Amino acid sequence: MVYLDANATTAVDPRVVDKMLPLFTETYGNPSSKHGFGEAAGAALRRAREQVRALLGAEQAAEIVFNSGGTEGANAAIMSALEASPRRREIIISAVEHPAVLALCAWLEKNKGIRIHVIPVDREGWLDLAAYKAALSERVAVVSIMWANNETGVIFPVPELAEQAKEFGALFHTDAVQAVGKLPIDLKATEIDMLSLSGHKFHAPKGVGALYLRSSVRFKPQLKGGHQERGRRPGTENMPGIVGLGAAAELAAAHMDDENVRVRALRDRLEQGILAEVGQCVAVGAGAERLPNTSTIAFSFIEGESIVLLLDRAGIAVSMGSACSVGSFEPSHVLTAMHVAKEAVRGAVRFSLSRDTTEADIDRAIAAVPPIVAKLRAISPFGSQEGAPQALDQAHV
Amino acid sequence: MVYLDANATTAVDPRVVDKMLPLFTETYGNPSSKHGFGEAAGAALRRAREQVRALLGAEQAAEIVFNSGGTEGANAAIMSALEASPRRREIIISAVEHPAVLALCAWLEKNKGIRIHVIPVDREGWLDLAAYKAALSERVAVVSIMWANNETGVIFPVPELAEQAKEFGALFHTDAVQAVGKLPIDLKATEIDMLSLSGHKFHAPKGVGALYLRSSVRFKPQLKGGHQERGRRPGTENMPGIVGLGAAAELAAAHMDDENVRVRALRDRLEQGILAEVGQCVAVGAGAERLPNTSTIAFSFIEGESIVLLLDRAGIAVSMGSACSVGSFEPSHVLTAMHVAKEAVRGAVRFSLSRDTTEADIDRAIAAVPPIVAKLRAISPFGSQEGAPQALDQAHV
Ligand SMILES: Cc1ncc(COP(=O)(O)O)c(C=O)c1O
Ligand SMILES: Cc1ncc(COP(=O)(O)O)c(C=O)c1O
Repeated sequence: MVYLDANATTAVDPRVVDKMLPLFTETYGNPSSKHGFGEAAGAALRRAREQVRALLGAEQAAEIVFNSGGTEGANAAIMSALEASPRRREIIISAVEHPAVLALCAWLEKNKGIRIHVIPVDREGWLDLAAYKAALSERVAVVSIMWANNETGVIFPVPELAEQAKEFGALFHTDAVQAVGKLPIDLKATEIDMLSLSGHKFHAPKGVGALYLRSSVRFKPQLKGGHQERGRRPGTENMPGIVGLGAAAELAAAHMDDENVRVRALRDRLEQGILAEVGQCVAVGAGAERLPNTSTIAFSFIEGESIVLLLDRAGIAVSMGSACSVGSFEPSHVLTAMHVAKEAVRGAVRFSLSRDTTEADIDRAIAAVPPIVAKLRAISPFGSQEGAPQALDQAHV
Repeated sequence: MVYLDANATTAVDPRVVDKMLPLFTETYGNPSSKHGFGEAAGAALRRAREQVRALLGAEQAAEIVFNSGGTEGANAAIMSALEASPRRREIIISAVEHPAVLALCAWLEKNKGIRIHVIPVDREGWLDLAAYKAALSERVAVVSIMWANNETGVIFPVPELAEQAKEFGALFHTDAVQAVGKLPIDLKATEIDMLSLSGHKFHAPKGVGALYLRSSVRFKPQLKGGHQERGRRPGTENMPGIVGLGAAAELAAAHMDDENVRVRALRDRLEQGILAEVGQCVAVGAGAERLPNTSTIAFSFIEGESIVLLLDRAGIAVSMGSACSVGSFEPSHVLTAMHVAKEAVRGAVRFSLSRDTTEADIDRAIAAVPPIVAKLRAISPFGSQEGAPQALDQAHV
């Protein structure tokens, strides 16, 4: 099986699993306990916190708060910001945020009367910086703009956006779930106040993540309970998960540069290979700065879902849009925001690579995609439009 | 090392670890994904949900919502109940709840004007049922009363309490973190609306839990995001943790009866062994119905913390009060609520056993405790009160 769905989730690195194993059956103490088992757990917790600090370039390990993942982190950051500045009743987000941010903001708008500024993106996925500046004011409690998009890989200039937010005293949170482990990050050199990450996107396990909270941020925890994480996240710590997150952070930091070169070359070969063989399709966001591992290709006149299913039968796992919005069957809000044409939005397929991806995986994908697209176009109601590869005006796809 | 701190956390059963392992590196798909990896994960998710349903005796597997643990579950249950019935602005809890409930209710009282009825317990730990009945009214949004206490093991009659709450249309939540896996539970035969549990208390890993939501409950999720868990708990599912929780649930269901007989005998031998050798101490809550695995002994005139430290040096891990309130150094609110005398509250030590506890562990603990207590009493400012074992009026300890 070829797995090209790393933006949905990654396999845990076997070296990470090795580090986790003792936490289940040997070093299984509760870090709050005052005996040897507890102390050993406490030491493991400190080590992991330092590993995550290092990956993020945070000033202090205490700025890292472990939690259950990206959704919890984004919710906690935004809710805390509103609670800490009750007189600021506006939020700025981008049009292409993950549901963890979008759904929360929709709820806040509807139920709490919070005004949500949704900053558009252009056809390439670039954020409308003028609209962003225009939305900033002292009424804004928090800006939440993702570092890299899960569907397209397009990267936003979050350090710059954070500086602008600071001028208005607004807190800046970034959903960096797709960026952490894939992009170099040095938080201490930025004005970013809060950042959320999720382990399973970079070879740590599912169900563990972290929220970076700059030491200057007045944080209002949403969960109430025990004193764990300095009172910022109650509940017994997910020790195996946290140790796995730390180990994955260390691996990512050590190998990021080399891996990015290798993965980018594979991604480019995959993308160019498909674009060269298949007509009426476009690599979405390819004109913008992108993560090295992500390629979303929108195939006109067919359904992405059918491509995903046929590729799966051919032993290749890819995704249509975001795995997180599956079940909704709505066309991707990200591609819609990018003005990708309707007949192409529905035919969008995301290929996302990781350190586990091999040359052979890419060869198989390049060989498998064109006949599947041809077959689907032959039976599609728009079949007549299929034919020899044509140059396509990207603006209209 | 002898581990007698199972109420703080347990070792993961090796059979549970075995079931989890494939989820890290083989069946690592995201259950939302529409390919083979995703489907395999989805199947594992359904299996685990059924295993937890069976342990709880819930009517439907869909009533089980996986989450990150007991703190999240209790917070979600209580916050949801308030949101679903905005005109009901009272909550009933017991005086001996875990901080997951107590801290939330203190916050709600202070910041949201919610009235909190705190039902007292008597010297044995029994709940004041008359006070409970008197507090019930149609103003109560939710009752949250724990099934079994983490510090003393005392069991509350939650099925009966739930029936009474129902007469007033109040929702009933129980923090069953210490009960699940140790007590037979058959939710479908009760009127309990919501129940929270945490895996790491019964040999599943830390960082995973579940919230039972009776199908009739109108649930208002606190976290917003993707469609996971039928929209009731967004965020990529903690698949290894969930599979571990399911496996641990199955093991608990299969062995509970035999294990309870064995563990209760060990606990009773430990308790009687210590009480026979050490004077001026009392087994807290021993007159009430208790979990079979828990014994809290309050040693007058010495500090529980010192006992814990010296037992640790002797290779025996136990706890003072609840591991979750460590860091606060306040005397246990549970024992205080039970009117245990001040000089004994500070000397309380909890011994909590599990399926991993052996006869030899108990022998070592019985041998280790008396000389440590004698040594501490000899150097304590109250040393003069130490002496030959005396019968002690429990009411005054
Ligand atoms: C009775 C009780 N409730 C709730 C909790 C909280 O569970 P968790 O720490 O898994 O969130 C615990 C244990 O820590 C507990 O003993
Ligand atoms: C950009 C982005 N943000 C947030 C999330 C949510 O993370 P999690 O599912 O771990 O809660 C995801 C992935 O699911 C994501 O891709």
